[in-house]
Amino acid sequence: MVATTDLLVEGRHFRRDWSGPADIGVKAAAQNLADVAAMGAVPTALLVGLATPGDLAVDWALDLVRGLVAECERGGAAIAGGDVTSAGTVMLGITALGDLEGRPPVTRAGARPGDLLAVAGRPGRSAAGLALLAAGRADEKLPAELAGLVAAHRRPQPPYPAGPEAARLGATAMIDISDGLLQDVGHVAAASGVSIDIDTARLPDPGPLYAAAGTLGADWLDWALTGGEDHALAATFPPGTALPEGWTVVGAAARGSGVLVNSRPHPGIGGWNHFR
Amino acid sequence: MVATTDLLVEGRHFRRDWSGPADIGVKAAAQNLADVAAMGAVPTALLVGLATPGDLAVDWALDLVRGLVAECERGGAAIAGGDVTSAGTVMLGITALGDLEGRPPVTRAGARPGDLLAVAGRPGRSAAGLALLAAGRADEKLPAELAGLVAAHRRPQPPYPAGPEAARLGATAMIDISDGLLQDVGHVAAASGVSIDIDTARLPDPGPLYAAAGTLGADWLDWALTGGEDHALAATFPPGTALPEGWTVVGAAARGSGVLVNSRPHPGIGGWNHFR
Repeated sequence: MVATTDLLVEGRHFRRDWSGPADIGVKAAAQNLADVAAMGAVPTALLVGLATPGDLAVDWALDLVRGLVAECERGGAAIAGGDVTSAGTVMLGITALGDLEGRPPVTRAGARPGDLLAVAGRPGRSAAGLALLAAGRADEKLPAELAGLVAAHRRPQPPYPAGPEAARLGATAMIDISDGLLQDVGHVAAASGVSIDIDTARLPDPGPLYAAAGTLGADWLDWALTGGEDHALAATFPPGTALPEGWTVVGAAARGSGVLVNSRPHPGIGGWNHFR
Repeated sequence: MVATTDLLVEGRHFRRDWSGPADIGVKAAAQNLADVAAMGAVPTALLVGLATPGDLAVDWALDLVRGLVAECERGGAAIAGGDVTSAGTVMLGITALGDLEGRPPVTRAGARPGDLLAVAGRPGRSAAGLALLAAGRADEKLPAELAGLVAAHRRPQPPYPAGPEAARLGATAMIDISDGLLQDVGHVAAASGVSIDIDTARLPDPGPLYAAAGTLGADWLDWALTGGEDHALAATFPPGTALPEGWTVVGAAARGSGVLVNSRPHPGIGGWNHFR
């Protein structure tokens, strides 16, 4: 089995004025269940620690739980227990457990020169949705593809089955993209002792990112490369692996170190800093 | 396997001016590892989520980790992972995992009329130590038995091996005493559908509690019956079970409901209220 834990702090990981309680529950479950899937495991259980002010509305807590339950159901897991206590602000401590079905875990450390880099899911959508929210555009009647980005920020939909699927296909390394594609692929490159080159022309489904970037005067590639919170999966596979639908080849590993973008160093590699 | 999680919030579960970081780490690990042992499992791993203000001294965090590691070693477990983030106050989200070694878990629900009630560990010591701290007596040169109570508050020492030992001996129900003997035995009585009678003359090692009560003008029995945080274990066993050293018979289960003290209802049954 595998186990993973995350803390989510009001004002840092979520805002009660930008996300409803059910959305916060979905995100809290999703980011932990995605970590389980990224090891190649099937999510089985969630433990939920909830700290709240004593005057929190009961409906808010119930809706939070509804969101947690809904995403657990989407991932095939159950809420198995938890803890409740009081605190000055809302905080969640989530632990997810998963079943490796007898396989060894897929770590960050197994990529080899020549391996393919592929992603499942669509990195950058959550960051683009957050940018629309920050620009005050989420209250407008948005075109469907932009509304989809806001929804992706509020309720990421990690591709859980793709994790164990990649493990069965022989993935050599895997990670969930929670801090940005560049930064998380960088963790794989560093742990594996390889360099990884990302071909931005192959990134999946950039259309909505183009549209949002045009609307906001922003750079779509910045969201795609440095946006976290989609909990898409990135994995490396032996060269020649036939990948099923849902996985898109976006690069390759080679001898060396670090991450390249279109075969060049990327200026201003960013991503989420947990203390910034 | 079994899994358990707890949140610990500064100002609610610990005070940085009353407990050093290593003590806080010991307590955080102890209360979760004791929950694992109380299911009859052998503690194996701890996941540690740590939220801190960005300006927390690094030495404070390192000492916290030293306390966590020390108690894990006492319990036979390892820190297997975790999460770090920022927050306005220090908060810990701890998850402990344990190995049932193929046995079914010992729950709260299996006590039967006629079963013995026994405890491992010495409930009330932490509460007495806290009372000494609250009275400003901890900075004095205390007699050894009173200093031992303060130490028991700062660093509880749950009897981890007693948990799996009780399971192997056929314990019918078990719980770790974190909210007070009366309240936690009450949980067993309610879940099992029995009444449980506690014989206060048989409570283990009351000497230091008498001494502290005399010094502070307090009631030693209040600490012993309603004090939590010692993480002693309470378990029920079939009548006639020969209990090894470390387990003390302190009562028995019967038909009925609720908890009796010396065969009478106890006025003012207290214990820890998580939202008081």
